[in-house]
Formats: sequence, structure tokens, C-alpha cells
Amino acid sequence: MIILGIDPGSVVCGYGVVDMQGNNSFSLIEYGVIHAKKSTPEFYERLKEIYKKTDNIIKRTNPDCSAVESMFYAKNAQSLMKLSHARASAILAATMNDLPILEYSPKEVKKSVTGRGAASKEQVSFMVRKILNIKETPEFFDATDALAVAICHGLKSNMPQSKGSSWSDYVKNNPNKVL
Amino acid sequence: MIILGIDPGSVVCGYGVVDMQGNNSFSLIEYGVIHAKKSTPEFYERLKEIYKKTDNIIKRTNPDCSAVESMFYAKNAQSLMKLSHARASAILAATMNDLPILEYSPKEVKKSVTGRGAASKEQVSFMVRKILNIKETPEFFDATDALAVAICHGLKSNMPQSKGSSWSDYVKNNPNKVL
Repeated sequence: MIILGIDPGSVVCGYGVVDMQGNNSFSLIEYGVIHAKKSTPEFYERLKEIYKKTDNIIKRTNPDCSAVESMFYAKNAQSLMKLSHARASAILAATMNDLPILEYSPKEVKKSVTGRGAASKEQVSFMVRKILNIKETPEFFDATDALAVAICHGLKSNMPQSKGSSWSDYVKNNPNKVL
Repeated sequence: MIILGIDPGSVVCGYGVVDMQGNNSFSLIEYGVIHAKKSTPEFYERLKEIYKKTDNIIKRTNPDCSAVESMFYAKNAQSLMKLSHARASAILAATMNDLPILEYSPKEVKKSVTGRGAASKEQVSFMVRKILNIKETPEFFDATDALAVAICHGLKSNMPQSKGSSWSDYVKNNPNKVL
């Protein structure tokens, strides 16, 4: 299963594509950052840049699905607004290519990669590089964060689904136990 | 000049296309709403719906530019995030079609259409229908709000530009007055 992880941002947007074979074995396909602001200072043009570059990555690597961190907060309303615009642009490129989008909280991502929900960006980057056997030190955490969310999705999708815990499920699954 | 006005929303997204001939004479091309939520309850699919429908409107009406209200606030962070995602989807359809995007504050839009920056949605709708000679009462204010922002851009683009008021501009424009 090829997974595209995205770490959106209106200035720098990270991406990472991994291939998960069998049971939790990952290999790196590619990773990097989209320097939206470097290409153009105009905010609306940056959204186009993020959309087009994400679309290119998808067409190039042909992922089965994409994973992105869920959003809860930002420094302030302006940041939240800008980040949401950038996030929508990357997500739109995925949905326009008919990719399913999976969301994971930052805590879930950190926990599944490092074992600790409150891990630092450095720790996440270290573990991602270890899992994917990346020798160099990436310049931006955005890229390793994107790889982390892709790995998180791979690990989660391999987990057994939790069994139904409601009484109605129990009755449905155990008709012989109903008097 | 054909202007596309957009009033974005993740549930209902209003749009309006007007043609401005000469000095402040407007005629209606089309207006309506995109019922994103009706088409699909899935949030990310809604973004795709907004993008595709806005793209269709642009291809159909061939506007010269698009105008949208600037955003400052929302009920809460979740609403701001959802609204920003929807807004980015509509805006992206415009930039991907190489349309310039002009932003106006809600106050500017209301003032240019009704003469009063604190006008109600009903007053804006009434004036928009008067300016564009719309006989029926539109079901959604989102559509008349979108027409209002298009009209606002038309009126503003016809205004004479304010003269440079800085000393450096004055010196540049009046070299004979410099001792």
C-alpha cells in the first residue's frame, strides 16, 4: 500500500510517500517540501502552487490513499485561516485524484511513531529516519512530519478493528446465547 | 467587465455573476447556490463539489475577475476552519482558471451596495435585486451576498485611484517644487 502523508502549511508544506509491504515494513518512495511562499508572495497564488505540486506528486507516485494531521488550533485566527486554506489546497489535490483522506491527531501520529504522544519534533524525525532508513538529516521537520503521518496510517490500518462493544452487537453476534 | 462574486460556505456556497457596462450599469448573468452538504455529508467530498461547481460556473460564464469577502472571524475555531477550507476550494477554482481575486471586507460590500456599512442581509438583498432588476425573492441570502460582492468590486474598480499622499510621492510628482 502506497501512502501519501501531508503536513500542510502556507509557507512550507511537507509531503512524504511511503510503501508499506506486509506487516509493518515501510520503504521510502520520496519526501520533501513545497516552498509555496518562495515561489510567490501572493497568498492566493500560493494555494495554486500547493495544489499543483501536490497533484504532481500524486500523479508521479500513484498512492492508494493520503493521510493528514487533524487540526485543532493555531497561534491565532489569522494563522488558523491561512493554514486551513493551505490544507484545503493539498487535500483538494488528493480528493480530485479520488484518493481517500485519513485524519490523525498530532498525538496519535507521535504515539504511533515514537510510542509517546508528547514526543518532540526531533524525536519524531529521528524515529521516521530510523524506520525508513534515511541517512541524511532533512532540512525541514515538515517533511519528516509528513512521513510520520503516512507511517501512522500504515500502522493503524494494520491494527485489528475493535470488536463491537454494545449489547446490540453482542446479541447480533451471539444469537445462541439469547434466551 | 464580467465579475464573479463568491460567498463561500461549507454547507451552502453562494455565487453571482454580473456584467458591468460603462459607468456603473450592471446586468445579471446568473446567480445561485452550491448545496455542498446536500450532495455529500463527507466534508472532504464537499470541497471537491465546491471546486468542481465553481470551475463549471467560470467555464460557463467566462468572468474577467472574481471578488470575495475577506474573513475576520467565525463563531468558533471549528467554524473558521471549515469556512476557510470551503473558501479555499472556491478561490482555488478561480486561480486555477487564472482569474484575479479581489477581497473586500463585509463592511465595504454593504456600504457600496446600500450606502451603510452596518446594513442587514435583507437590506443588501433588497438593493442587489433593485440594481440587477431581479423580480423573484431568492431563497438564500448567500446568493444575493455573492452578487453584492461582485457589484462592490465593479463600483470600486470604477472609482478614481487616490493620489499618493506620502512626501516621497509628492517630491516625485513635483520636482520643480524641490529647492
